[in-house]
Amino acid sequence: MNGAESLIRTAIASGVELCLANPGTTEMPLVSALDRAAGMRAVLGLFEGVCTGAADGYARMAEKPALTLLHLGPGFANGIANLHNARRAGSPVVNVIGDHASWHRAADAPLASDIVSLARPVSAFVRESRRAADLAGDAAAAIEAALAPPGHVATLIVPADCQWEPAGAPGPRAQRAAPRPVAAARVERAALALRSDEPAVLMLGGAALRERGLVAAERVRAATGCHVLHDTFVARLERGAALPGFERLPYFPEQAIQRLTGARRLVLAGTRDPVSFFGYPDVPSRLAPADCERIELASVEEDVAGALEALADALGAKSTPARVEARERPAPPASGALDVAALGRALAALQPEGAIVVDEAATSGAVWFAQAAAAPRHTLLALTGGAIGQGLPCAVGAALACPDRKVIALQADGSGMYTLQALWTMARESLDVLVVVCANRSYRILQIELARAGVAEPGPQARRLVELAHPELDWTALARGMGVPAVRVAEAGPFAVELARALAEPGPALIEALL
Amino acid sequence: MNGAESLIRTAIASGVELCLANPGTTEMPLVSALDRAAGMRAVLGLFEGVCTGAADGYARMAEKPALTLLHLGPGFANGIANLHNARRAGSPVVNVIGDHASWHRAADAPLASDIVSLARPVSAFVRESRRAADLAGDAAAAIEAALAPPGHVATLIVPADCQWEPAGAPGPRAQRAAPRPVAAARVERAALALRSDEPAVLMLGGAALRERGLVAAERVRAATGCHVLHDTFVARLERGAALPGFERLPYFPEQAIQRLTGARRLVLAGTRDPVSFFGYPDVPSRLAPADCERIELASVEEDVAGALEALADALGAKSTPARVEARERPAPPASGALDVAALGRALAALQPEGAIVVDEAATSGAVWFAQAAAAPRHTLLALTGGAIGQGLPCAVGAALACPDRKVIALQADGSGMYTLQALWTMARESLDVLVVVCANRSYRILQIELARAGVAEPGPQARRLVELAHPELDWTALARGMGVPAVRVAEAGPFAVELARALAEPGPALIEALL
Repeated sequence: MNGAESLIRTAIASGVELCLANPGTTEMPLVSALDRAAGMRAVLGLFEGVCTGAADGYARMAEKPALTLLHLGPGFANGIANLHNARRAGSPVVNVIGDHASWHRAADAPLASDIVSLARPVSAFVRESRRAADLAGDAAAAIEAALAPPGHVATLIVPADCQWEPAGAPGPRAQRAAPRPVAAARVERAALALRSDEPAVLMLGGAALRERGLVAAERVRAATGCHVLHDTFVARLERGAALPGFERLPYFPEQAIQRLTGARRLVLAGTRDPVSFFGYPDVPSRLAPADCERIELASVEEDVAGALEALADALGAKSTPARVEARERPAPPASGALDVAALGRALAALQPEGAIVVDEAATSGAVWFAQAAAAPRHTLLALTGGAIGQGLPCAVGAALACPDRKVIALQADGSGMYTLQALWTMARESLDVLVVVCANRSYRILQIELARAGVAEPGPQARRLVELAHPELDWTALARGMGVPAVRVAEAGPFAVELARALAEPGPALIEALL
Repeated sequence: MNGAESLIRTAIASGVELCLANPGTTEMPLVSALDRAAGMRAVLGLFEGVCTGAADGYARMAEKPALTLLHLGPGFANGIANLHNARRAGSPVVNVIGDHASWHRAADAPLASDIVSLARPVSAFVRESRRAADLAGDAAAAIEAALAPPGHVATLIVPADCQWEPAGAPGPRAQRAAPRPVAAARVERAALALRSDEPAVLMLGGAALRERGLVAAERVRAATGCHVLHDTFVARLERGAALPGFERLPYFPEQAIQRLTGARRLVLAGTRDPVSFFGYPDVPSRLAPADCERIELASVEEDVAGALEALADALGAKSTPARVEARERPAPPASGALDVAALGRALAALQPEGAIVVDEAATSGAVWFAQAAAAPRHTLLALTGGAIGQGLPCAVGAALACPDRKVIALQADGSGMYTLQALWTMARESLDVLVVVCANRSYRILQIELARAGVAEPGPQARRLVELAHPELDWTALARGMGVPAVRVAEAGPFAVELARALAEPGPALIEALL
C-alpha cells in the first residue's frame, strides 16, 4: 500500500464517503487510490470552487466532512472563496492538496507556491505531510480537526512522493468530539437576565437553528416574553410547518440597529454579538445598543441545544411549547408581472415537503424567506461568509448528501456566474436540483450600495460595473451547454406553471426567471 | 477629493489606463472615482480570475500594468491563480483590494479575512493603506513596484474609510526603472564559454524572446554554432516571418533531459536553470547534465537584449544575422478528420499578419506551434505558471492592449471551463478575439499523467476524474449564453472554412473544434 492509499483508507474508516475533486498531476496516486479502496465516491467539479462549495453544502446536511482533492497552490486558491464560506458556516471540510515531490520543491517549478500562506486564512488546521508513513495519521488528524465542534476547515498538503512511496497500514480512524456542555452557572446567568423586567433579546445561531434548539427557544420565549431573533445568514435553518419560527436580523445595519433598540439584555446562543456586514460612515460596527448587556449562553463550539433546553427548564417553561398555529400558505400567482414578490410567493406556495433551499438570491430572496415560513418543513442553507458563488456548488453538495430530498437553488444571476460550472456536475451526477435563476441582470445590491455611498447618479463607468446587461446572459443556453435542461419565463403565471412542473420531476433543471 | 479619487488620479498620472474590475461594497468610492477622474477605462469581469488573467495578458502586450479592482479577501482569492501566472510571467499588475473600514476590522464581520496572507504568495509588494492621505503615495509605490524589471504583481489593500475620507492632491507619478545593465565581465565569461569547443547551449527566456533578443541570439548562434533553446512556457514570444526562431525546450522531463544531454556549457539569458515541470520518480529536477557548467548571462531583472547584443559583439558576430530563409507555410486542410494535426495546420495556414495567439491548448497545441514557425509575424502568449484558466482572460487583456490586432485564443476545453466567464467580457467590450476550443472532452494531459504514474488501466473513478464527457459540453451554447457567436465543426475541411470566415471578421467569435 502506498501513502495515497493509506490516506484514502483512513478517511473511509473514519466515515468519510465523498471526494470532491479537481485533481492534477501531483494528485495522480490519490486518484488511483480511489479505485483501489472501496467506499469513497469521487465527484468531479470543473472548477475548484465547485468542489469546495459542494463540500460545504454536503457538510451542512451530512454533518460530516467530504474530502476535496485539489491541485497545488493555484488549484487550492480557486477553492478559497467557498472555503471562506465554509469556515463561517462551521462546516467540517478536509482539503487534500497534492504538492510537488518534496525533493522537487527546491526547483521552484512553475506551479510551486506558498500553499501554507494561502491555506491559513481559511483553515483551522494546516499540515504538510513529511513522509509516506505519516499520511494515514495526518489524514486522521485532519479529519478530527474538521470534526471538532462546530466544524472546521482542515487542510492537508501531501507531496507527491509521500503519495507514491510505500506506507504501512491505514491509521486509526478519526474520532468525533462532542460539543462541550455548558456549565450550569452560565445557564443560570442567562435565566436571570431573561427573568428581569428589562427588554431582552435571545439571539440564535449555529446549532440553535435545528429542531431541538428552536423548540427550546420557543419554550424560553413563551416563558419570558423575550424577543427571539436569529442570524441574518445561517449555515442551516430548519423551518416551516409546525416548527417554531423566529425573526431574522435585518441585513442593513440601520434596520438591525432599530430592531435592537431598547434591548437591555442580549442572550447569545450559538452566535456572537451581532455586527454590521459592512462598515459605513457614522454607523457603529456593533448592532445592539452599547449599554445592552451581552450574556453568552453557549458559543458555537458548545452544546447550544442542550444549553437552550437547560435554560428553558431553569425558567420553568412548559416542557413543550404551545402548538404553532398553522400559518396560511400563499397561493401561487396565476398571472401578472414576474417580480421578486411573485417569485417568492410561487416558490413558497409550491416547494415540496422536505425541500432544501439554498438561498444565494441576494436582493431577490427576501419575499420568499418571509412567505416560506408557512411552507411545509424545509431546510435553508444561506451564504454565511459573503463570498458569492456559493449557491450552485452548495446545492451540489446538499444533493449529494440528501439524494431523497429536492434541492432548490434560489440563485442570483451575478453570483451564479461565479461558479456556473456547478451545473455540469449536477448533470453528470443526475442530482435532484432545481435552479431558479433570479435574472435581474444587475448586481442589484451594489446599485443599492452605490446609492448608500451617496452616488445618486452613477456615471457611465460605475453604471457598467454594477449591471449585467449588454450583453444579456442567456441562462438557458448556459445550462444546456452543460447538460441541464432549462426554460425561461418572464411572467408570474408561466413561472408558477414551470416551477410546478420542474418540482414534480427529478432534476437537474433550471428556470431562468426574468425579473 | 477623497482618498479613492487621489488613488485613481495618481494611477492615471503614472500612465495606468485600464481597470479590470469586479467590485463590491467596500470598493464603491473607487468605482465612483473612475467617473470623476478622466482617463481610466473600467472593464467588468464576471469573475475575478477574468480580471487578473486579463491584467496579465494586457501587461504582456502593453508593457505596463492595469489595475485590478477586487472585493476583500474572497474576491482577491478568486484572482490568485491567474496572478500566479502573472508572477511567473514577470507581468506588471497592480491589485487594488477594498477592505473593511479600518475601525470595522475588529468586528470580524462575515467577509473579513487575512488578505495579506493570501496576497504574499503571488505579490512582490503588499501594502495595507493606513489613512486617506496615504492613498496617492501608496498607489505610486505599488505601481513602481509593479514596474520594477521584469514586472511584478503588487497588491494594495485599501480600507473603505481610507477611500471615502478626504485626501490631498494626487501623489507623484510612479517612475519606471530601467533593467540593470549587465557587467562586461559576465558577457566575457559567457563569450568564453561559447567559444570553447565543448557543446554549448544558449537558453533564452523573458525579454530575450522579443525581436532584439532573438536577432542577437541568432548572431551568437551563427558565430559559435551553439544550440539555442527557449523556455517551454513563454510569457511572450515574437515569431514567424523573417524572425529567427529557436527550438522550444520539450515539456516532459525525459525529452528535455535527452535534448540537453552532452551539453557542457549552459548560458542563461533571461531565464533560469531549466527544471522539470513536475517531479517524477527517478527523474532529476534539473534537466541539464549535473556536470554542465551554468553561466548566467543576464537574469530576468537585467537588460537581457542588451547583454545578448554585447555577447554577439564580443564574439565578433556579424552585425546582422544571415537572412532567415522563407519557411514554407502549410496549406489549410481541405478534408479529412479534424485532429490536432489538422487543427494546427489550418491555424498556421490562415492566421493573419500580426496575430496574437494565446496558447492554452495543452496537448492540442504542439502541432500548431511547430507549423506556425512559417506563419506571418505573430506573438505567442503562453501559460507561464501552469495555473489553468488563463487562456480566455489573457486573450481579453491582449485584445484590450492591442485593439488593432487579431487575438486568437487556442484553448483546451478543460482549462477553458475554469474561467469561461471571460467570453462575456469579450462580447461586452466587442473584443477582436477568436476563440478556438480544442474539444477533446477530457483532461488529456492527465490521462497521459495517469499512464506515466503506472496506471495502465485506470479504474472507473479515475477515468471519470480525467474525462469531460457525460455530459458533453456544448461550447456553442455556452458562448451564445454570454453573447459570443459560435459554431461547431467536426471535420478538417469545414474547420478551415469556418476559421477563414471568422478570421476575416472582427470578433468576438468562437469555434468549437471537435477533436
